[in-house]
Amino acid sequence: MSALVVAVDCSTTAAKAVVVEADGTVVGQAAHPIATATPHPAWHEQDPGEWWTATRAAIAGAVAASGRAADVAAVCLTHQRETFVCTDDAGNPLRPAILWLDGRAHAEIAELGSTQVHALSGKPPDTTPAIYKLAWLARHEPDVLARAARVGDVHAVLAHRLTGRWATATQSADTLGLFDLRRLDWSPELLALAGVRAEQLPALVPAGEEIAPLLPDVAADLGLPGPVPLVAGIGDGQAAGLALGATRPGIAYLNLGTSMVMGVQSPQYATDDAFRTLAGVPTGEYTLETVLNAAAYLATWTRERFGGGRTTVADMEAAAAQVAPGAEGLLVLPYWNAAQTPYWDPLARGAVVGWHGRHTPAHLYRAVLEGVAFELRLHLERLEAATGRPVEHLRAVGGGARSELWVRIVADVVQRPVRVCSAGEVSAAGAALLGHAFLTGGDPTAVGEPPGSEVAPDPAAGDAYARLAGVHRRLYPQLRDVFADLSALA
Amino acid sequence: MSALVVAVDCSTTAAKAVVVEADGTVVGQAAHPIATATPHPAWHEQDPGEWWTATRAAIAGAVAASGRAADVAAVCLTHQRETFVCTDDAGNPLRPAILWLDGRAHAEIAELGSTQVHALSGKPPDTTPAIYKLAWLARHEPDVLARAARVGDVHAVLAHRLTGRWATATQSADTLGLFDLRRLDWSPELLALAGVRAEQLPALVPAGEEIAPLLPDVAADLGLPGPVPLVAGIGDGQAAGLALGATRPGIAYLNLGTSMVMGVQSPQYATDDAFRTLAGVPTGEYTLETVLNAAAYLATWTRERFGGGRTTVADMEAAAAQVAPGAEGLLVLPYWNAAQTPYWDPLARGAVVGWHGRHTPAHLYRAVLEGVAFELRLHLERLEAATGRPVEHLRAVGGGARSELWVRIVADVVQRPVRVCSAGEVSAAGAALLGHAFLTGGDPTAVGEPPGSEVAPDPAAGDAYARLAGVHRRLYPQLRDVFADLSALA
Repeated sequence: MSALVVAVDCSTTAAKAVVVEADGTVVGQAAHPIATATPHPAWHEQDPGEWWTATRAAIAGAVAASGRAADVAAVCLTHQRETFVCTDDAGNPLRPAILWLDGRAHAEIAELGSTQVHALSGKPPDTTPAIYKLAWLARHEPDVLARAARVGDVHAVLAHRLTGRWATATQSADTLGLFDLRRLDWSPELLALAGVRAEQLPALVPAGEEIAPLLPDVAADLGLPGPVPLVAGIGDGQAAGLALGATRPGIAYLNLGTSMVMGVQSPQYATDDAFRTLAGVPTGEYTLETVLNAAAYLATWTRERFGGGRTTVADMEAAAAQVAPGAEGLLVLPYWNAAQTPYWDPLARGAVVGWHGRHTPAHLYRAVLEGVAFELRLHLERLEAATGRPVEHLRAVGGGARSELWVRIVADVVQRPVRVCSAGEVSAAGAALLGHAFLTGGDPTAVGEPPGSEVAPDPAAGDAYARLAGVHRRLYPQLRDVFADLSALA
Repeated sequence: MSALVVAVDCSTTAAKAVVVEADGTVVGQAAHPIATATPHPAWHEQDPGEWWTATRAAIAGAVAASGRAADVAAVCLTHQRETFVCTDDAGNPLRPAILWLDGRAHAEIAELGSTQVHALSGKPPDTTPAIYKLAWLARHEPDVLARAARVGDVHAVLAHRLTGRWATATQSADTLGLFDLRRLDWSPELLALAGVRAEQLPALVPAGEEIAPLLPDVAADLGLPGPVPLVAGIGDGQAAGLALGATRPGIAYLNLGTSMVMGVQSPQYATDDAFRTLAGVPTGEYTLETVLNAAAYLATWTRERFGGGRTTVADMEAAAAQVAPGAEGLLVLPYWNAAQTPYWDPLARGAVVGWHGRHTPAHLYRAVLEGVAFELRLHLERLEAATGRPVEHLRAVGGGARSELWVRIVADVVQRPVRVCSAGEVSAAGAALLGHAFLTGGDPTAVGEPPGSEVAPDPAAGDAYARLAGVHRRLYPQLRDVFADLSALA
């Protein structure tokens, strides 16, 4: 029997563990949910204790389900990015963890965000990087930051629980926005901005290298054969890119999930408003990502609140499929809670423009799906212009990719083939690749075409969408000051 | 017993007859519905035969209900404006009547509409005046216009049925948009533009003067004591203004109905984009009206399609009343099918701007009510600037005025007291004033404060709304070209 890797995706909603063979076959899996609290409208917090209890339950469940505990040779992690926690020396959290989607720090983004921070960290000033929320803590809860023995990301917290070592993966911690990303190390300048001390932060281990063996009692508790190595993992977006083979030129991964994230590999460090820059695999290469925070989130929100009583996705999509492309002139600017690529404007909001009396909830729903696709078209054009490298193939995963209608709209709007990948836990699969490459000395980026089906664009529909995309693209520039004024009046 | 007047409002949806004493007391009433057909999305047509059958049934019913047929001394009409029909010599329609809200002629509006047409007719180029739809007929159904012995408005058709004379009221026919409004007579220049011949048009009789006695057999059929005079009436908007005493300085009538119409009296002829100019009472004075086509229409449409299952107005309003003023930053530009005052843009469409995840159907509904109120604020400011005369009091009728929430919002947004008038058929009451003034030689504009209740503005709410109104006001100028492009792509 070949060696197995336990890969864990500790996501925003659940910890999901898979036990994986070298060829990617999953022989056991389990998941455990994680709760999010919203104590104020824009705040999103979690109990970091749950990261561990959920991960522990998922690993133990997956190992037991595989029936092959004795073959497990390594553990590797992927996880929600940008989320962080402050703990005491014993690892007890001093306050709830603050999540990537938490929007409390818009004043700090406006004040501290700059082209210099972007050039250094690779992260455009935006809601998600932890740096601005750490600065918020330094102002609003200074005692927490002062007392914290440790400040770390999800990977650091889990690695500490598993191995006792206060360390994390370089390709995980990068997303906090505190790195000098060229050097792949903490930036004293950015730490000063955030109000964080270097000694609070975990040691950095490049993705695919060993952090430490598991603590013997933890390994036993998880049902593992012994203190197998914990291999440094990677953030969930880059992990998905690995698993989908998007480390190769011309191929992008597309996660059409709650958020829409599209990413490509870059051999060189580069920054631009067209993308955010992340530490990639192999270490020293980079991942360039575009982001729209409200994608499937917005489709679900629209159906639940304004769907006209259509309670199932199937009903809503069947109705929207009856509406002609262009939704009879209804355009949706899907910046429901902020704009990311390429405007990075935390004050931006949504807009629906072109209403007339014949529009129905089905028109609105279709316009939402199209609005997200128009954003992807913009992302692709800006990314290609910034890098000079064409994106020829999209490999799609996420809840939205299960919608035949949405994938058809995306392919037609962006005029590129979209491969709908049938793999289940694609981020965990990326972590499993890192684990197996560690065990065999192989190349984690040596990935073939993932299983799935190809959707080819329809050139005729593309022409009509291209004209609408030109109008859609003007909405944000023409409404930007309205959003700013609405924010000032709120 | 004092003399009675039968006043008829032949509106878009029904003919409503009231039998009225000199002091305005209604002693009998009846109504009969009129159907509208929509053979194409923007087309709105009626069978003119129904105008007569509904009016006949309403008069006969109201007279019978009064039990005082013998006291009826005159009949006077008011009616939906701008609507017209082409008939043969016997009065048989050559095609269905084309209604005021019919939007088929946007190409003709763009081509023939001009400041010269506006200056001459008093009507900004817009959907409603008949002139553009007559031009559409001349192009698309030339045979109809060529063969028509008569081209007339609703008043003309009913007067012909009642008296046998092909005549109409000056203050009714004016709304077709074919008048030299200074001279209060058909304009040869505008008739040429519309493709109409002077001999097709009815004779003009000023409001409040006798057109002719009723035909004896018609009077008998209606249950009247004999061939009482038909007194020349007036369009329904001006009629409402008469009944509400809005012929006096500083007082405006506000119809918060399907459309929102606000009007004031002007002793001089004047034209401006801030209003449309109509023939008023006394003859030689003018009515200046502002218009938003989608008011209560939009509230109902929003509730029915996007109300989140709230099927009654009461439920929807209770939910919207729980939302704070400003709808948490959601703005509605209510140009659902076009913009009227002050932009007169048939290509304009609706927009909802400022969406975030906490918005609900109740927020949207409140934002609709507020959006209409912001438009009224704009109308008032533009009207006052154009005339140099302040509008200090609003006297409101229409379905929207029955909404306590909406009237509160309107009063707070425009910062003027709003008198919610409890009179039932206010347009018919205006026609009754003309009938009684004819009988007594009195002044139809000598009207006291109408019954109802006054809603005073809240200055604190006004400050918050004033700031939002400034943002709201930028939406159309900043989206105008988007609407034009969406129309070009449709």
